[in-house]
Amino acid sequence: MVYTLSELARLAGAKLRGRGDREIEGVAPLARAGAREIAYCASSRYRSQLPDSGAGALIVTAEDGEGLDRDLLICTDPRVAFARVAAALCPEPPVVAGRHETAVIDEGAQIDASAYVGAHAVVEAGAQIGRGASIGAGAFVGAGARIGAHTRIEPRVVVMHDCIIGEHCVISPGAVIGGEGFGYVREADGRWLKVPQLGRVVIGDYVDVGANTAIDRGALGDTTIANGVKLDNLIQIAHNVKVGENTAMAGCVGVAGSAVIGSRCLIAGGAGIMGHITVGDDVEVTAMSFLKGSVEGPGRFSSSLPATNADVWAKNVGRFRHIDELARRLRRAERAIKQLLSGGKP
Amino acid sequence: MVYTLSELARLAGAKLRGRGDREIEGVAPLARAGAREIAYCASSRYRSQLPDSGAGALIVTAEDGEGLDRDLLICTDPRVAFARVAAALCPEPPVVAGRHETAVIDEGAQIDASAYVGAHAVVEAGAQIGRGASIGAGAFVGAGARIGAHTRIEPRVVVMHDCIIGEHCVISPGAVIGGEGFGYVREADGRWLKVPQLGRVVIGDYVDVGANTAIDRGALGDTTIANGVKLDNLIQIAHNVKVGENTAMAGCVGVAGSAVIGSRCLIAGGAGIMGHITVGDDVEVTAMSFLKGSVEGPGRFSSSLPATNADVWAKNVGRFRHIDELARRLRRAERAIKQLLSGGKP
Amino acid sequence: MVYTLSELARLAGAKLRGRGDREIEGVAPLARAGAREIAYCASSRYRSQLPDSGAGALIVTAEDGEGLDRDLLICTDPRVAFARVAAALCPEPPVVAGRHETAVIDEGAQIDASAYVGAHAVVEAGAQIGRGASIGAGAFVGAGARIGAHTRIEPRVVVMHDCIIGEHCVISPGAVIGGEGFGYVREADGRWLKVPQLGRVVIGDYVDVGANTAIDRGALGDTTIANGVKLDNLIQIAHNVKVGENTAMAGCVGVAGSAVIGSRCLIAGGAGIMGHITVGDDVEVTAMSFLKGSVEGPGRFSSSLPATNADVWAKNVGRFRHIDELARRLRRAERAIKQLLSGGKP
Repeated sequence: MVYTLSELARLAGAKLRGRGDREIEGVAPLARAGAREIAYCASSRYRSQLPDSGAGALIVTAEDGEGLDRDLLICTDPRVAFARVAAALCPEPPVVAGRHETAVIDEGAQIDASAYVGAHAVVEAGAQIGRGASIGAGAFVGAGARIGAHTRIEPRVVVMHDCIIGEHCVISPGAVIGGEGFGYVREADGRWLKVPQLGRVVIGDYVDVGANTAIDRGALGDTTIANGVKLDNLIQIAHNVKVGENTAMAGCVGVAGSAVIGSRCLIAGGAGIMGHITVGDDVEVTAMSFLKGSVEGPGRFSSSLPATNADVWAKNVGRFRHIDELARRLRRAERAIKQLLSGGKP
Repeated sequence: MVYTLSELARLAGAKLRGRGDREIEGVAPLARAGAREIAYCASSRYRSQLPDSGAGALIVTAEDGEGLDRDLLICTDPRVAFARVAAALCPEPPVVAGRHETAVIDEGAQIDASAYVGAHAVVEAGAQIGRGASIGAGAFVGAGARIGAHTRIEPRVVVMHDCIIGEHCVISPGAVIGGEGFGYVREADGRWLKVPQLGRVVIGDYVDVGANTAIDRGALGDTTIANGVKLDNLIQIAHNVKVGENTAMAGCVGVAGSAVIGSRCLIAGGAGIMGHITVGDDVEVTAMSFLKGSVEGPGRFSSSLPATNADVWAKNVGRFRHIDELARRLRRAERAIKQLLSGGKP
Repeated sequence: MVYTLSELARLAGAKLRGRGDREIEGVAPLARAGAREIAYCASSRYRSQLPDSGAGALIVTAEDGEGLDRDLLICTDPRVAFARVAAALCPEPPVVAGRHETAVIDEGAQIDASAYVGAHAVVEAGAQIGRGASIGAGAFVGAGARIGAHTRIEPRVVVMHDCIIGEHCVISPGAVIGGEGFGYVREADGRWLKVPQLGRVVIGDYVDVGANTAIDRGALGDTTIANGVKLDNLIQIAHNVKVGENTAMAGCVGVAGSAVIGSRCLIAGGAGIMGHITVGDDVEVTAMSFLKGSVEGPGRFSSSLPATNADVWAKNVGRFRHIDELARRLRRAERAIKQLLSGGKP
């Protein structure tokens, strides 16, 4: 797509400085951008690269743009402005309606005429594929599942029976939506009796699910992912979990069964969320932390330990194993000092 | 399926109170159950919901059922009773024998006449598919692999060559059974020389494997998963691991190579098990913990840290980095106190 | 393959002791090896098994081989010698050129005549498959992607558009190469605006990628994996990460966006690497550790806590939450002692 710099300024909510009629047709990093591309300065650290960038235009803060003799979009947050500009310049390719001849589509499935079903995809009976949606190569959409309008199901995704995915979602390759929840009761002899997993996964609109992420179906009720949620790769969402609107989780997060997570939460990579707890709105959990109990929001929670020299670490860990003893010894020392200070002698 | 309440009482090992001829045909949560459905009370916390539930019958403890004018199944553990009742009322749909016309089945594969092979599935030479087993859409069963009777291989599962899966197993979507183990030796120049991974994965009966879980084949011997083991989603089982009967692992657990894990262990979500260690029977490992050395069972092991306010946490972590110094200072203080108490002066 | 013991000695760089013309055609563990197989002694712990092994030949250290009346390959590191011998005796089966009739290959794809494309695989327009490469059953190679010579793409792998994989690589089942990076900016109302992910994944030669591992494409630049890197299963590599030559990562590692990791690093299982940090060459990170800041190499870094008895652990964790207070109390005690020692009284 080609836009003039004036048009991009409007789209980005930025102030134009320079030639508004300059044509821009792509985005690139500062170091590689050419005359018909726009680049952005993510941080003042990169300010020195601005004069020499080959970019046709630059997105900068007022401060970084000071004295710069270039065509500029000036704004308070160049990253946000860049995201808007890039979305306009590099739109997703339009969905071409049709069904690949190798797709296996049950007669009882309802596929909108504007949707696309790719090579070797399988769509079972009663499934519904919405307007402008696309089902990637080799993806599986089980019986009775519903895929909303303009949602993109990427290659090799599995959506099990009766699960619902809203509109404008992206489900990345290898994700599994609606696998059986991990529900068992233990018999006296140690064997596990499976509890039938009869619920669904219900996903709202504008939800992204990362590659090889797994979201289990509910046991009796549903597992629900609200509008605007963004899930990165290799995340585990167990049965009956509820995730609130616009919450984002980074890679490798695990959420145990029946946890209820609020809106606008930020769960950083590798964090674990205990089952059956409630997490308030606007809660942040730092990377590799373990949220074990319910918390109210807003708030930022952590239990992560940053790595240090392994020998020093080993010594500290050794002490940690005796920290309870350390505390008791300190208590005794304090008592002795009190006695001494009061002039007492044994 | 339809059962009378008397029949369900017998199946559940529960005591019937009320109309034994009442017909029940499904299960539902307390709040949504209708007259032909049965619900259960998971905890006395939900006791107040019992009188108003629309359920045709309720599964309760004697205590929770006291004074309740409803048709009841009374038992000591409603969750177990419910699991039995639900398994009877909501059986898995029967496997319909046949082969989808798009399945690619090698002439040298042996597929039992009662088994099902789904759309776009691939079954290679020498593979065996047992009585009543089903191979899901797009699943891959490699050369010489064996799938036992009544085992369900779900869509997009990969079972690599020569691996063996027992009877009555469920392998969830995206799971990979028998990928190559991670075995290398390092050359002097830093390059890695691959050690051929010549073993198999051998899985017993009644084993469940979760979505996108990976179980690597052994290097020389086999990776073995004993009868009744339940593995949740996104678990990594490295080469040559042995997992004992009825052990259960929750999501995101990682087990490193050659670890030997006993029977009836419970490994909670996100835990890591070190390689080459031995874990006794009936060992529990708490969520997000790291079992680094061999342990005997029974026993419960933990190294998880619950998240707290991030600022408080940061302060404690700072102290932790100096805990060794703290311990030394305490030792010095104790010596000084001893000296003072004995009347000594410097 | 059949080799004489002399030939194997040469291949392994080991010293032959015994019958050089003995024929060997396979490898096996000490306890199961037969007369035409070779076994190795991984550690002096297994020395007692050597005399009774049925193996035709044994790979041992000089020390373990002392006084042993067997046909031997003597070397300093039996594991390395075994890897070389096993690679020769058990080579990967050769790739049989061809295209399965069910493969969907775009006319605009370039497939070398010596390459193989398996059942239900999909190769899109502009993709290139090199000499002797193989594309497994059900794998997906997106538009413009390039697969180098002799690289093996295993079943159900997804390689998204424009990504590049070098020569002699192995991509294990279920891996996803080139999924969209997790890039968003937050609008004032909490909604997430997607940042287009326009980069690629560029993988060098001799790289192995484990089952269900996910490597995201770059945002503007590329995500790059250098020659000789070995990645185990269920690893998450976020957008714009750089991994240096011959670095190895074990299962369940997560690397956040834009991290730059050096050469010959060893990242053990379950470790997390923070985004936007730089990790020097020859850095080791221990299992389950969290590398939060940049580090220079060489060096070994850890933040892992080994699990102990859960009750003892709980007590220590309780103390840890008050370690800051503990440190303050110690400081006060030290001051009081100093005062006492100097003869002062309150």
